[in-house]
Amino acid sequence: MSWEDYVRKVVPYVPGEQPQKKVIKLNTNECPYPPAPKVQEIIDKFNYDTLRLYPDPEAGALVSAISDYYNVPKDQVFVGVGSDDVLSMSFLTFFNSDKPILFPDITYSFYDVWAELYHIPYKQMPLDDEFRIKKEDYYTPSGGIIFPNPNAPTGVFEDISEIEDIIEHNPDVVVIIDEAYIDFGGKSVLPLIDKYENLLVVQTFSKSRAMAGMRIGYAFGSKKLIGYLQDAKFSFNSYTMNRPSIEAGAASVQDKEYFEATVKKIIATRERTKKALKDLGFTFPDSMSNFIFAKHEKYSGDELFEMLKQKGIYVRHWNKDRISDYLRITIGTDDEMDELIKVLGEYIK
Amino acid sequence: MSWEDYVRKVVPYVPGEQPQKKVIKLNTNECPYPPAPKVQEIIDKFNYDTLRLYPDPEAGALVSAISDYYNVPKDQVFVGVGSDDVLSMSFLTFFNSDKPILFPDITYSFYDVWAELYHIPYKQMPLDDEFRIKKEDYYTPSGGIIFPNPNAPTGVFEDISEIEDIIEHNPDVVVIIDEAYIDFGGKSVLPLIDKYENLLVVQTFSKSRAMAGMRIGYAFGSKKLIGYLQDAKFSFNSYTMNRPSIEAGAASVQDKEYFEATVKKIIATRERTKKALKDLGFTFPDSMSNFIFAKHEKYSGDELFEMLKQKGIYVRHWNKDRISDYLRITIGTDDEMDELIKVLGEYIK
Repeated sequence: MSWEDYVRKVVPYVPGEQPQKKVIKLNTNECPYPPAPKVQEIIDKFNYDTLRLYPDPEAGALVSAISDYYNVPKDQVFVGVGSDDVLSMSFLTFFNSDKPILFPDITYSFYDVWAELYHIPYKQMPLDDEFRIKKEDYYTPSGGIIFPNPNAPTGVFEDISEIEDIIEHNPDVVVIIDEAYIDFGGKSVLPLIDKYENLLVVQTFSKSRAMAGMRIGYAFGSKKLIGYLQDAKFSFNSYTMNRPSIEAGAASVQDKEYFEATVKKIIATRERTKKALKDLGFTFPDSMSNFIFAKHEKYSGDELFEMLKQKGIYVRHWNKDRISDYLRITIGTDDEMDELIKVLGEYIK
Repeated sequence: MSWEDYVRKVVPYVPGEQPQKKVIKLNTNECPYPPAPKVQEIIDKFNYDTLRLYPDPEAGALVSAISDYYNVPKDQVFVGVGSDDVLSMSFLTFFNSDKPILFPDITYSFYDVWAELYHIPYKQMPLDDEFRIKKEDYYTPSGGIIFPNPNAPTGVFEDISEIEDIIEHNPDVVVIIDEAYIDFGGKSVLPLIDKYENLLVVQTFSKSRAMAGMRIGYAFGSKKLIGYLQDAKFSFNSYTMNRPSIEAGAASVQDKEYFEATVKKIIATRERTKKALKDLGFTFPDSMSNFIFAKHEKYSGDELFEMLKQKGIYVRHWNKDRISDYLRITIGTDDEMDELIKVLGEYIK
């Protein structure tokens, strides 16, 4: 036997490229606008001497700000290093059954990676031909359920009533709704946490709050659910949110007006882009997120992806069953989308 | 069955108190001096607009700076959110045997917490009466080995030759040396990574580099070992190091002179404090760290801990077998240590 026999072997998630050169970056669903101006204020007056001290392990200032904004008690709020940290910790904490956890076949590509990492059995339930969840698929005994709403990378939003049906059928396992993209026109299931003790709702600062570079995610749930998650988190690492994250995150949440204006701008650009893409012969499921998942009637996903990359426009493309002809296009600024449409138009004619 | 039956239940690690009021804080081994001035420069010119973009998942700037400073190739360097993140990820990655992992009975109190979290069997090997590791204890088949050097909370440093003996006897499992306190007079086993493919050496920015609030840890090992760790890390969360951490961390490493001067000051204060504590009737194993683990000939650890707390001086105390009469006292500034000695002197007379 060698030490390598005891290594946990995994096929890691591959994130979208972070190009070093100047490009139009529509490949990782970042926000095209800066964070709230209050974030800059906090950084400008940040006292670097405080860095010598450990941060507040409870990230109290950030939890308070989120609690105030969403009107949820502090002991029902959990924070972590991006929603990936929150989700990964939730897999570890809640998915310990012998029965497989369930999630869609087309969904956030980290779910199966976490399941593999933690040796959690899982089963992927195929979306229908319009990329919608078939709720009956989730009426079966399982070890837990997770899916994004709106779904990624499709952008398809499911109504609260559909989701509540799924939760209602699964009182004995934890149901996680990953709402990374909820602020772009969807409606959160957050109010349901008072009704269902086993519902965890996860959100992020990386998209609508323009702070992907700061790594802040959060979750809401019953006091009991959040308590278990805290215990696991404090067994993993007491201090994960560093001082700049806690302070800048709290400041960002306090700037409601800026947040709402930013989201409104992105939605307006998205709707304009939908129209332009349609005119060019693209089809796509209606998106309620900050991206559009589109395929062209004549050109393959691969071809368009490579062509755009050549022209300095990065979008996301997967060589995967059912979706290899699609491009996931992040909504950038109006200028960036105009350039995208121009380049596509010239190629497609 | 209820969803709670599938929850991973743990007894979390309890970190030292982070008091909100003004106290002399000698309880969590933080550095009494600020980070390198270059860190302030980086924060002052930080462009908050970049926060909208994900950080470099490889944390390239930070890895490069560490690679340059320690003269270790970049693919043999791993970074994480504090050494706790690095260590926790290492437990998950490397300790997957049915045989128990081994670590001392008196040691960093997170090791058994991680073992419990990940369901890793473990066995604690008693230190001798002088709090030294008995190397023969580690010549037995195991699932892996981990201990800090200098050890925590004792401050005892083991010679490289002793450690190499242990590594030599364990070619088939991963051996982790946790060098959180190595910069305060100890000698790192880092050169041994070229000789032993299964050796992981973990260090941190939280002590000697005065950046506990930024959460940066790192590890060195063979290319193969670091590769496995990266794979697990990228399966957990692609982006853990946020932009301020990467930039400020890199700047900190580049300021070698400031780093060396800071460490020198702390060592001088420690040696002075050792003498003063001895004069007051304290005994302690000789410390090569930024703390002293001391007990008094007449007063119990509990009594002195509470008395100091009353006087606004926080130290660390554990109600645990073999060490309940000890206080772990972090080395602060000269003024802080003078105040500590004065308060102890008045009480002890």
